[in-house]
Amino acid sequence: MNELNFASDNVMGASAPVIEALVAANAGALPAYGGDEITARLTKRFAALFECELDVVLVATGTAANALALATALSPWGLCLCHSESHVIDDECGAPEFFSHGAKLVGLPGVGGKIEAPAVAAAVDRLPRHEKQMPAECVSISQATESGLVYRLDEIAGISEVARARGLWFHMDGARFANALVRLGCSPAEMTWRRGVDILSFGGTKNGCLAAEAILVFAPELRKTLRQRRKRSGHTLSKGRLLSAQFEGYLEADHWLANARHANAMADRLARGLGALPGVRPAWPTEANEVFAILPRALDERLRRAGASYHPWSDLSLAAGEAVGPEEVLVRLVTSFATEETSVDALLAAARTESGATA
Amino acid sequence: MNELNFASDNVMGASAPVIEALVAANAGALPAYGGDEITARLTKRFAALFECELDVVLVATGTAANALALATALSPWGLCLCHSESHVIDDECGAPEFFSHGAKLVGLPGVGGKIEAPAVAAAVDRLPRHEKQMPAECVSISQATESGLVYRLDEIAGISEVARARGLWFHMDGARFANALVRLGCSPAEMTWRRGVDILSFGGTKNGCLAAEAILVFAPELRKTLRQRRKRSGHTLSKGRLLSAQFEGYLEADHWLANARHANAMADRLARGLGALPGVRPAWPTEANEVFAILPRALDERLRRAGASYHPWSDLSLAAGEAVGPEEVLVRLVTSFATEETSVDALLAAARTESGATA
Amino acid sequence: MNELNFASDNVMGASAPVIEALVAANAGALPAYGGDEITARLTKRFAALFECELDVVLVATGTAANALALATALSPWGLCLCHSESHVIDDECGAPEFFSHGAKLVGLPGVGGKIEAPAVAAAVDRLPRHEKQMPAECVSISQATESGLVYRLDEIAGISEVARARGLWFHMDGARFANALVRLGCSPAEMTWRRGVDILSFGGTKNGCLAAEAILVFAPELRKTLRQRRKRSGHTLSKGRLLSAQFEGYLEADHWLANARHANAMADRLARGLGALPGVRPAWPTEANEVFAILPRALDERLRRAGASYHPWSDLSLAAGEAVGPEEVLVRLVTSFATEETSVDALLAAARTESGATA
Amino acid sequence: MNELNFASDNVMGASAPVIEALVAANAGALPAYGGDEITARLTKRFAALFECELDVVLVATGTAANALALATALSPWGLCLCHSESHVIDDECGAPEFFSHGAKLVGLPGVGGKIEAPAVAAAVDRLPRHEKQMPAECVSISQATESGLVYRLDEIAGISEVARARGLWFHMDGARFANALVRLGCSPAEMTWRRGVDILSFGGTKNGCLAAEAILVFAPELRKTLRQRRKRSGHTLSKGRLLSAQFEGYLEADHWLANARHANAMADRLARGLGALPGVRPAWPTEANEVFAILPRALDERLRRAGASYHPWSDLSLAAGEAVGPEEVLVRLVTSFATEETSVDALLAAARTESGATA
Repeated sequence: MNELNFASDNVMGASAPVIEALVAANAGALPAYGGDEITARLTKRFAALFECELDVVLVATGTAANALALATALSPWGLCLCHSESHVIDDECGAPEFFSHGAKLVGLPGVGGKIEAPAVAAAVDRLPRHEKQMPAECVSISQATESGLVYRLDEIAGISEVARARGLWFHMDGARFANALVRLGCSPAEMTWRRGVDILSFGGTKNGCLAAEAILVFAPELRKTLRQRRKRSGHTLSKGRLLSAQFEGYLEADHWLANARHANAMADRLARGLGALPGVRPAWPTEANEVFAILPRALDERLRRAGASYHPWSDLSLAAGEAVGPEEVLVRLVTSFATEETSVDALLAAARTESGATA
Repeated sequence: MNELNFASDNVMGASAPVIEALVAANAGALPAYGGDEITARLTKRFAALFECELDVVLVATGTAANALALATALSPWGLCLCHSESHVIDDECGAPEFFSHGAKLVGLPGVGGKIEAPAVAAAVDRLPRHEKQMPAECVSISQATESGLVYRLDEIAGISEVARARGLWFHMDGARFANALVRLGCSPAEMTWRRGVDILSFGGTKNGCLAAEAILVFAPELRKTLRQRRKRSGHTLSKGRLLSAQFEGYLEADHWLANARHANAMADRLARGLGALPGVRPAWPTEANEVFAILPRALDERLRRAGASYHPWSDLSLAAGEAVGPEEVLVRLVTSFATEETSVDALLAAARTESGATA
Repeated sequence: MNELNFASDNVMGASAPVIEALVAANAGALPAYGGDEITARLTKRFAALFECELDVVLVATGTAANALALATALSPWGLCLCHSESHVIDDECGAPEFFSHGAKLVGLPGVGGKIEAPAVAAAVDRLPRHEKQMPAECVSISQATESGLVYRLDEIAGISEVARARGLWFHMDGARFANALVRLGCSPAEMTWRRGVDILSFGGTKNGCLAAEAILVFAPELRKTLRQRRKRSGHTLSKGRLLSAQFEGYLEADHWLANARHANAMADRLARGLGALPGVRPAWPTEANEVFAILPRALDERLRRAGASYHPWSDLSLAAGEAVGPEEVLVRLVTSFATEETSVDALLAAARTESGATA
Repeated sequence: MNELNFASDNVMGASAPVIEALVAANAGALPAYGGDEITARLTKRFAALFECELDVVLVATGTAANALALATALSPWGLCLCHSESHVIDDECGAPEFFSHGAKLVGLPGVGGKIEAPAVAAAVDRLPRHEKQMPAECVSISQATESGLVYRLDEIAGISEVARARGLWFHMDGARFANALVRLGCSPAEMTWRRGVDILSFGGTKNGCLAAEAILVFAPELRKTLRQRRKRSGHTLSKGRLLSAQFEGYLEADHWLANARHANAMADRLARGLGALPGVRPAWPTEANEVFAILPRALDERLRRAGASYHPWSDLSLAAGEAVGPEEVLVRLVTSFATEETSVDALLAAARTESGATA
């Protein structure tokens, strides 16, 4: 029942150009530990893509990318401000704490997984400044957020300004970077370092790779320790081509942007379709490749019986005044580069049938 | 100049059956985070292969496998005894210390990278037992060793006995497990848990995979924390099939054993050829897929000029009485599943020419 | 201007019986590292005092006591639930995270620094149970709380029940244990293990010692690693008598209870006096040795000019409906064993004068 | 049987001026957490004593001082070179590894607990410089050593030169700083920063304090994180006067030097007396307040029966050619500020009697 699988953007393998690049890179001898020419080429490509000098460190998982990035930006007794439902707080089993040797993630509230500049400023300014208290050292945002929203450029700039003024590093978790980027229609540079981002987890896995994430470091001061941190955490692949080759296929001919556009379009189609059903309303607007909807419980149950696969979701980030009723559920449906229009339509058809049945 | 590349067994990509299995597994939706059916199948396969009930935890690097395995077997203030030149001490940038939160690896001397049961016993028994001192909790050996030697079954059993009697866990770093296994001609069970091994880093990467290692846990007490340790260290792949599929290709039809036999045969051929040259002698016998030789410096220099690639090596594990002379160098040449007989012969031909030139 | 010093209960040295016991214990040779007879005697005394078999581990600071206690009750990836303004979260510069190697303290809201059993249950039950999420493993409360409140026995039992049912350890931070105890008028056993407390930070420093805290371990499973954790964190004093002697003086002839009763009585007197002033109201009831009051800003400023010393305080734990007005401040005044009635009366006199002046 | 107690220099309490200073400082209110005037005064005093600007951080144990000092000088993946039998390796239950989050102490051999500049240079220069290997970052020596020897000024300078040239920090464990200093007859500055020491653990506990150690930081770069490291490790005393007052008594009127001179004189007397006995020879020369002797086993056994208390010791640091025979034992006898001449003579008398009895 793959057809109705909207559980996650990691249930599919790699997209064709990525797997082909991997197979092509498999032949022949290459230096180990990332000393290969593909990695060198890729580093230049990232510099061109982001229109700046930067450091590129490849790893296989988003958790590793986030945890390594945060560890470079935090002392073991530092605080990192982020949304209270962010992935780094909720879904990495303490990886940031492990890699940073004890730093603390401070969760701020915010609608739709977004934190806002004034709230960040207030939280930091409220902290006592005594050696008994952990000092704020970093801010981290997810682009797109855990609720599928996309920070506008001025929102990013606003947070960056608050961070800069207080001497904090600014990290962006870009597990769904491409989906956010094509939604905003701006360049990678505009969404990152030109708005003050110091270090970025650039995700590939959810958008077409099998396992490939890049830590892109814009701030020179954050580059010093990354390679040793990567090695001692076991994330330096001896056959480094596995990661670099995936990214070559991913970036070639704007394949990654095409993948993201497709996933977003499928999400839009799904959101429109669901929104037209009686009793269904969006939890948050659909801005990337995830649809969050509040459904009648009966509809949810029958959809599942029809074979649909997706996850229930937390309601903690709903806008003020919005709530999930006792006979409702909040659910997340995720589309990806591999989601077919026919699947979306099949789900909608099932929903319509079921919805009618509910009525 | 791939032809004369004997630098490492990680300079090549994956062998054909492995990459084909990966490509085959790429299609379609599968549950994430190792919940896929390929992983489930693989776990059963490992149980059958090792003839026992065991836990299988997959990761992408040998450093991760070793560090996770040791961390499960050590408290943060525990000691692990191993050879003073072991990979876990010398080549993982402190990963075992990181994953274990500060445990200490105690290096014991020993010819050819081997530790011996009486030396382990003596080292443990000499330790004071006061709360000021870190207690011994684990012994770790490499099979094959960093000097290319293979522990005999009775040697493994002897160390295990010492460990068991003192309440220590017994870990085997099997980065070159297959090469050792085919040399001994025994079963995986005989070389591991039947000789008292509690936890094994089962390597795939050096012998035909791109990036695939398995932690195989025989001792039930060591299984409890592994999955959380893996996740918080960023080693749980969301698209788990990447690892499980490689291993399916690797294990299918004894492909892994064939790879290892080939690599060992190439090493034997190389060792024989080098041994016949004037002024060349083995540093240690060739028992797996690595050849360690003491060469005249002039021969070494000219071989390199001829395009040969290999590493100089430490002489700390030489047998008593053996030494590298002032005009000699100790070098390591590694063969792999991908090494062709013509490459070996080309190197030997170059060596013979050069050797003659030296004389 | 010591006379008006209400800044903290750690601005004074030791009370007379404590410093005398320390001087008396100074003479003569004694075994090092806590192997002395005073420590042995003290351990028995604690067992008698708490009417149970227990383990006693002495350290010099409350931060060490809390961090060591929590580290024994948490895996490095575990969650500890406690009040969002608790000392372990806010005032120890990340010590619990350091000692536990990365465990996370989850702050729950609650009036007056108290967490409530149903809120703890709801927070734990809401957590997903996947290897991506840190599991709840411990609950910690402060007795008295950071807002000077005292948990009733049934409140402690209620939290303990919630913890026990979910397999969580239950820790009590007793930095002001004595002050809470004499307020409740119960026995140490009744306020701790008879209500399900597994491990207790028993404070001495704030109530008459110079630097002496005891970790009292009721749950046998939590005893195994404490001494090694203490040593490796540098908290095992070579001249252990420093700590044990202070505690002997502290416990002798119920000196500790007398100290606490005095401090509480002074707090009551202060609270009554302040409460009678126009424009002054309690932030929370005075239940231990701390008075939290909301004062007119003008009064606060002039009191300080009169030489009074005390700290402003956070309003995050105020009851619903209560708030600090724009012309008000929330302050904390702390009394101790050393606070003299004349000091309280002097402060009140100054306040009355100033209060009159304000009007 | 205190009279014959030569077990350690931490079996006695504080010397009279120290305990008196502590009692004197006990009265009255003082700011908490080291903000008191005694600490401020002490900091100036240390600056005058060491003739330089420096940072002073007080803690209660030598383990804390060493571990904090090393943690400031090491990244979590750094190597620290020191003697293989140094206290930081053998007697602190992994505190340096804990505080540094995984750094590794590399033990070098050397007679009498001393490491030598050329050996340090060779060890560092032999290390590969790849991201797979932990880089050397620090050298640590004990003054006096664990075998009771004192580094000469030129030896310290030589190690410092090696360290400086390789970018390594230089730490001195001065648990017996005073004993070494009075033996050399030089100034504190000459034995430390004028010979390149960057950070010093200045011990007070073994030489007359109850529990007082100072981390003295000469290198400005090493000062940044110490206070936060101290707080998060639970070593910031709320009643900071406990530590500062001890040190005031300790340093006043050169009391500390008098204590050390006495202890050394007692050791000399003991060494001379033992050396005159048949079958007894020194393991290493007596240079501080410890006597290491090789005794006939029979003498040792009877001395113990006579009530003498002292520890057997390791023979790993004996000079080449020296060895403990099968009927011999290597023992350590420690003198202190509190050791009386009559005790030394009583032990010698007992030894002489016993020695005669053995013959």
